[in-house]
Amino acid sequence: MFNFDEEHYLQLGRDAYALREKVENLADELTKKGFENLFFIASGGSLALTDTFEYIWRTKSKIPVYSEMAAEAVLKENKQLNERSLVILQSKSGDTKETVAAAKYLKEKGITTIGIVRIADSPLDQIVDYSIVEKVENFAGGDPENMVLYFLLFRMLYNNGEFPNYKKFADELENLPKALVSVRQQADKKAEEFAAKYKDEQYQLWIGSGSLWGKTYSYSMCVLEEMQWIKTKSIKAPEYFHGTLEIVEDDTCVVLLRGEDETRVICDRVENFTKQHSSKFTVFDTKDYVTEGISDEFRVIIGQLIMTGVLDRISVYLEKMRNHSLDIRRYYRVLEY
Amino acid sequence: MFNFDEEHYLQLGRDAYALREKVENLADELTKKGFENLFFIASGGSLALTDTFEYIWRTKSKIPVYSEMAAEAVLKENKQLNERSLVILQSKSGDTKETVAAAKYLKEKGITTIGIVRIADSPLDQIVDYSIVEKVENFAGGDPENMVLYFLLFRMLYNNGEFPNYKKFADELENLPKALVSVRQQADKKAEEFAAKYKDEQYQLWIGSGSLWGKTYSYSMCVLEEMQWIKTKSIKAPEYFHGTLEIVEDDTCVVLLRGEDETRVICDRVENFTKQHSSKFTVFDTKDYVTEGISDEFRVIIGQLIMTGVLDRISVYLEKMRNHSLDIRRYYRVLEY
Repeated sequence: MFNFDEEHYLQLGRDAYALREKVENLADELTKKGFENLFFIASGGSLALTDTFEYIWRTKSKIPVYSEMAAEAVLKENKQLNERSLVILQSKSGDTKETVAAAKYLKEKGITTIGIVRIADSPLDQIVDYSIVEKVENFAGGDPENMVLYFLLFRMLYNNGEFPNYKKFADELENLPKALVSVRQQADKKAEEFAAKYKDEQYQLWIGSGSLWGKTYSYSMCVLEEMQWIKTKSIKAPEYFHGTLEIVEDDTCVVLLRGEDETRVICDRVENFTKQHSSKFTVFDTKDYVTEGISDEFRVIIGQLIMTGVLDRISVYLEKMRNHSLDIRRYYRVLEY
Repeated sequence: MFNFDEEHYLQLGRDAYALREKVENLADELTKKGFENLFFIASGGSLALTDTFEYIWRTKSKIPVYSEMAAEAVLKENKQLNERSLVILQSKSGDTKETVAAAKYLKEKGITTIGIVRIADSPLDQIVDYSIVEKVENFAGGDPENMVLYFLLFRMLYNNGEFPNYKKFADELENLPKALVSVRQQADKKAEEFAAKYKDEQYQLWIGSGSLWGKTYSYSMCVLEEMQWIKTKSIKAPEYFHGTLEIVEDDTCVVLLRGEDETRVICDRVENFTKQHSSKFTVFDTKDYVTEGISDEFRVIIGQLIMTGVLDRISVYLEKMRNHSLDIRRYYRVLEY
C-alpha cells in the first residue's frame, strides 16, 4: 500500500500486545485497591480517543465514568473527582502541558493516576502513580493506545463481573494488528477515490454517533483541521437533526461514519435524509470491513480502530494529492501562546 | 429596541417567576423521595440549555449528573440510568419526537421523570410523572426554562446542603427579567455592528468554555446554522488549542464567548492567540454587562442568560440585514425524514 509500512505497523502491534501481562497485572491491582469512579483526563485527540471507551464502559459498568478536559479539570472543582477516583491520563509525547499540569494537580490531591505515554521519563511518565510506556516512534495513529486501554479497562470490567468473555477477547487481540492491516487494504481504493474527489473542498461536515463519535470529532479536528487546514464541522448524528442539517445543500460535502453499535439506526436516518439533499455525500461503514480472527461480539469494541484504518488511508492520499504534509503546523508547538 | 417587545418579555419573566412556589414544592418532594443521580435527556437546543446546569451542578453537588441525547438514550443501556435516577426532559413544543420516545422508554422502566414544556397536554406533558408547564408563546428564547431550572435545581442543592444562599438567589431572580432587558439594551449597539460587519461570512468559528459551552454550541447550531444557514464550527476553548486553531487565518471570522466562571483564564489564552492571527475576531464577554439586582456571587449561574441576551440582539439584526427570517426552515418540521 502507498505510504504504509506494514512490517513496522505489525511490529508496533506486537509491542503493544506484549504489554498485556503487565497491564493486566496493573488492572488486577487497581481492582483490588478499589475505586469509586473512573475519569479520563486529557486534551484533544488523546481525550477523543477515550470517548469510545467511555461509551462502552457506560453500557457495561455500574462504576460511573467521566471525562474532563485537562485544562478545565485543574481550574474547577468536580465533586466526583476525589481520592476514591481512578484517573487515566494520556499524552503521546508525555509533555502536553495541560495534561502534565492536571497530573500534578491530581497528585497534590492524592488521587490515583495512570499515565499512558510513548516517551519514557517524559514529564507525565514521571508524575503519575502508574505509568504504561509504549515503545512507539514515528507513528501518528492511536492504535497502540487502544490496545493498552483494552487490556486495562476490559480486564477491570471482567474483574468486576461485567465482561465475562475477557480472556477470549484479549486472546483475539493478538490477531488485531493483522486484521487492521487488512482493513487498510480493503479500504484503500475507496479512500483514494474519496481523497481525489473531495481534496479541494474547503468545508466538510462529518457526522458520527455512539462509540464512533470520538473518532468523528478527532478526525475532523486533528487531521482535517490541524494537519490539512480544511474547515470542518463535526456533529453527533442525533444532533444533526436539530439544527445542522439546515446548511446541507446539493454541493455540501458531507461524510457519515457508521459503526455497529446500538446507535446504528440513527445513522440510517442520517443516510436516508442526506443522500436526498447532497450529491457530495459519502458513508464509511465499519461493517464493510472484515476483521479475521476477531469474533462478532467484539466488533463494537474495536469499531474505532476499524474506522481509524479507513481514515488513515484517506489521510495519506490527502497529503499526497493536496501536496500538504501531515506534519506541518502553523501554530501548534511552533509559536508560544 | 428594534424588534424586541419589552413588555411581553417582562410579562414572560413574571409568569416564569410565578412558578417559583410550585417548582420549589416539587423540588422538596423530589429531595424527600431521594435520588441517586440526575439526568438531563433532550435533543438539540433543549439539551444544550442544560449544559450550564450540568457544569455548575458538578462543581457543587455530591450527586452525579449526566446528560444523554434522547435518541441515543432509548437505544443503549446506561448502567447509571435506573429506577433510582431522576430525569429532567425538556421540549418547548412538548412533541419533539426523540424526547417523547425517551419519556415513554423511561416510564416503562419505572424511572422518575420531570418534563418542562410550554404546551399543556402536549405528549411530553402527558407522559412524565411531574410536568412543569410554562405560559410561553411566540418566544424563541430559553429564558423561562432557565428560570424554572433555577428554582428546581438550586432548591434541590439547597436541600442537600450544597447551596446555602438559595433563598437570597431565588428572591433576586425576581429582578432578573428586568436586568436581562437591560443587558439587551447594553449589548444592542455592539450586536448591530457585529451583524453588519459579518453578515456575509459563510463560515464562522465560535469558541466558548465551561458554563458557556452549551450556549456556544447551541447558538452556532440552532441560530446560525438552523435559522440563518451559515456554516459554523463551535469548539470548546481548551480544545481549540489542540487542532482547530490551525485553520485560523487573517480573514477567518472567529467569535469568543467569555464568561465569569473558573475557565475564564482559558478564554484569555484564546483571545491572546486569536487577536494576533485573525482580523475578524470578536469577543463577547458577560463581564461587560451590568445586571442590577443580582449579586456578584450569582453571576456565573446567570451567565448563560446574560450571553443569551447579547446573542439574541445579534439574531434580530442578522435576520434584518440578511433578509432571512429566523423562522424559515428547509427541512426541519417541513419534510419527513
